[in-house]
Amino acid sequence: MGQDQINVSRNEVAAKPIPPVTESKQTQTIGGMLSAAEELLLKKVMNAFGNPPVHVVLWDGREIPTPDGNSVAHVLLRDRGALMKLIADPGLNFAELYSAQRIEVKGDLPEFLEAVYQVWPVSSHSKLRELLAPLIGLQRNTFSKARSNVSHHYDIGNDFYKLWLDERMLYTCAYFASPDLSLEDAQLAKMDHVCRKLRLQPGETVVEAGCGWGALSLHMAKHYGVKVKAYNISKEQIAYARERSAKEGMNDLVEFVEDDYRNVSGKYDAFVSVGMLEHIGVDHFQELGAVIDHCLKDEGCGLIHSIGMNYPRPIDAWAERYIFPGAGPPSLGQMMQIFEPFNFSVLDVENLRLHYARTLEHWLRRYEVNADKVLAMFDQEFVRAWRLYLAGSIATFKTGDMQLFQVVFTRAANNQIPWTREGLYQQQSSRRG
Amino acid sequence: MGQDQINVSRNEVAAKPIPPVTESKQTQTIGGMLSAAEELLLKKVMNAFGNPPVHVVLWDGREIPTPDGNSVAHVLLRDRGALMKLIADPGLNFAELYSAQRIEVKGDLPEFLEAVYQVWPVSSHSKLRELLAPLIGLQRNTFSKARSNVSHHYDIGNDFYKLWLDERMLYTCAYFASPDLSLEDAQLAKMDHVCRKLRLQPGETVVEAGCGWGALSLHMAKHYGVKVKAYNISKEQIAYARERSAKEGMNDLVEFVEDDYRNVSGKYDAFVSVGMLEHIGVDHFQELGAVIDHCLKDEGCGLIHSIGMNYPRPIDAWAERYIFPGAGPPSLGQMMQIFEPFNFSVLDVENLRLHYARTLEHWLRRYEVNADKVLAMFDQEFVRAWRLYLAGSIATFKTGDMQLFQVVFTRAANNQIPWTREGLYQQQSSRRG
Repeated sequence: MGQDQINVSRNEVAAKPIPPVTESKQTQTIGGMLSAAEELLLKKVMNAFGNPPVHVVLWDGREIPTPDGNSVAHVLLRDRGALMKLIADPGLNFAELYSAQRIEVKGDLPEFLEAVYQVWPVSSHSKLRELLAPLIGLQRNTFSKARSNVSHHYDIGNDFYKLWLDERMLYTCAYFASPDLSLEDAQLAKMDHVCRKLRLQPGETVVEAGCGWGALSLHMAKHYGVKVKAYNISKEQIAYARERSAKEGMNDLVEFVEDDYRNVSGKYDAFVSVGMLEHIGVDHFQELGAVIDHCLKDEGCGLIHSIGMNYPRPIDAWAERYIFPGAGPPSLGQMMQIFEPFNFSVLDVENLRLHYARTLEHWLRRYEVNADKVLAMFDQEFVRAWRLYLAGSIATFKTGDMQLFQVVFTRAANNQIPWTREGLYQQQSSRRG
Repeated sequence: MGQDQINVSRNEVAAKPIPPVTESKQTQTIGGMLSAAEELLLKKVMNAFGNPPVHVVLWDGREIPTPDGNSVAHVLLRDRGALMKLIADPGLNFAELYSAQRIEVKGDLPEFLEAVYQVWPVSSHSKLRELLAPLIGLQRNTFSKARSNVSHHYDIGNDFYKLWLDERMLYTCAYFASPDLSLEDAQLAKMDHVCRKLRLQPGETVVEAGCGWGALSLHMAKHYGVKVKAYNISKEQIAYARERSAKEGMNDLVEFVEDDYRNVSGKYDAFVSVGMLEHIGVDHFQELGAVIDHCLKDEGCGLIHSIGMNYPRPIDAWAERYIFPGAGPPSLGQMMQIFEPFNFSVLDVENLRLHYARTLEHWLRRYEVNADKVLAMFDQEFVRAWRLYLAGSIATFKTGDMQLFQVVFTRAANNQIPWTREGLYQQQSSRRG
């Protein structure tokens, strides 16, 4: 499993024609020998990247194949300046150069990035990996903040996401109960997986912190008969969610509140938060724990779903500025800062990182199908930047650079907990809602 | 689930006859009024314990019922000195007084202790809870060290454990795939659960750190066709395990090594450690991580099964001295110190605390059945001390004071991981070995 990768983005939108590429080793010096200086520079670049199996094509058509002739992709540097910039800071500048069409990748973009990440020296962790990896987290609450800071990435509306998310607009990792599920079914399966983990019963009350476009809240109410209060600070998303709730006649069961999770009031049978934690910052984890402690009933149960890392590490300055202002994906140890001060018991942790890679493959495939529409909405640089983000995120989850944790917890003294987890795996994906 | 408790130890072995107890509220002052000083002392004791619903009977037959007349047990204080000792340090002295028959409990001992734990002020956490709770961890590696320190607890041999453990001698939490399994079947189910989590395949190699009497090693080899190298520093247990291995014709597949886990050599497909972590101390977690990092193959998988706590807290001086020298059950956050420095990915955490309560109920029931044999091997004080430890441990797991974590992990880059956890819940308990 996980190997039958969906190939996407083989059809690059190239602004200039790429010179034809031949497979033979003999093409090593088409267009003349590299100058000694250029050769040295290239070696430096390739070393900085850990010497990935990449066939390089220079601006004048010259080619530098891998030593053994095997490569995952052909990379075209369009000008000498691009080479210089890569040398200066490969991690920081690759994305910019790619977006600006000064670098082209001929081949499967996620596979290329995965190959790069696999050999990228660990000491460079805070560079390219960090730059690309967290971008899939660019969502919801902080999105509206972030987009006030940055140029053309940030005038993106619901219409943009509609082009490549599932029909219910879930911008978080899906759950492929079986690997060949459609994205729609996998997002449904994710919501059911979450609801089963919370063991929701009709008539119970649920609070959702960071509800995005409202899909999970509506799903819980509709299919599990619970009453939901859902918080989100994004005006646009709340408006969208309310409209949908009205359309589906769910207003009696679901209340969408345009407010910060820290202002949650009331007492609930369940607390759920999917894809918000990455954006609040470890410094606020104890505060989140206090919010949960004050809103969860004695026999209540909670679930937090978040991108994570294997160990705490600072995120890249670029990502910190544009994607996770003051925040970033936590390690599992860091997540415990939510639970430990309040004597919560962690009952279950599941790592779904390969499911996020699969989710992103679906998103990227849909994105490519709609690349022309994205181009019409924005510009070529935008199209390429987002392509790279999605592809880079696939690579990040495939190489184990990022994790996806679902953590189930309850109060220490609550013995109304499932005896085993077997119930999660019965009647799998029987619902089609 | 978890409610259909097995009632045990209603038949206390009382050294002296306990005065008959009546149910009426009117019995409050049988034998005369309490002196003002005694009343104050008693109030202090009850306050220190958080005022549990306990009916107290004094040495002269006087009774102090609960305000509402409802009690989980009658507690007899046999002399005034016992009362004084309880006041001085209830947590530390209760166990001693109980063992010495200066305190009697009439009623279900685990239920009594659970009721006490439930109301015991959090600030006193490091006292009685700590004193009793970790005792079930008194096992294997450090047991041999510990018993050199303490008087009559420590000349306990395999024959003692045979009286109340399952036939395969597993001294760790069982897995009751269904709550009504026998202890034998639940220990088998636990071993299968562990093997499924590790996805053992015939021909693979496994290293076990802290193998006790060898049951898991032999089970893995026999039923999963793997080759096992098992470490334990206990001479006696290793001898027992080797004898059993020879009897069962498993010497080709299982090697029992009398050595410290830190001296593990070789490369393995799987690392497993069940019930050792509690004894090595958080300061050594990174060292354990290094051992695993150096012995695990690239696509290898590991499982650590350990008693845990919801948050780090110092353990009681008594327990630290006698049970966990230099160690104690870690919080989940503390456990991450094993994994994070080596970029391991945590794939799965399962909390089985109610299964440990159930396991202990079985142990205590068997223990009571064989109390006369224990008395013949040791003395009354020993019989009572162990009864209290087992009962207290039940209460500890029932009240959520202690947890039982099974953590599955692998290397960050390993994509040969299960797509979902559904496989754990197929063909449940089909084997009877």
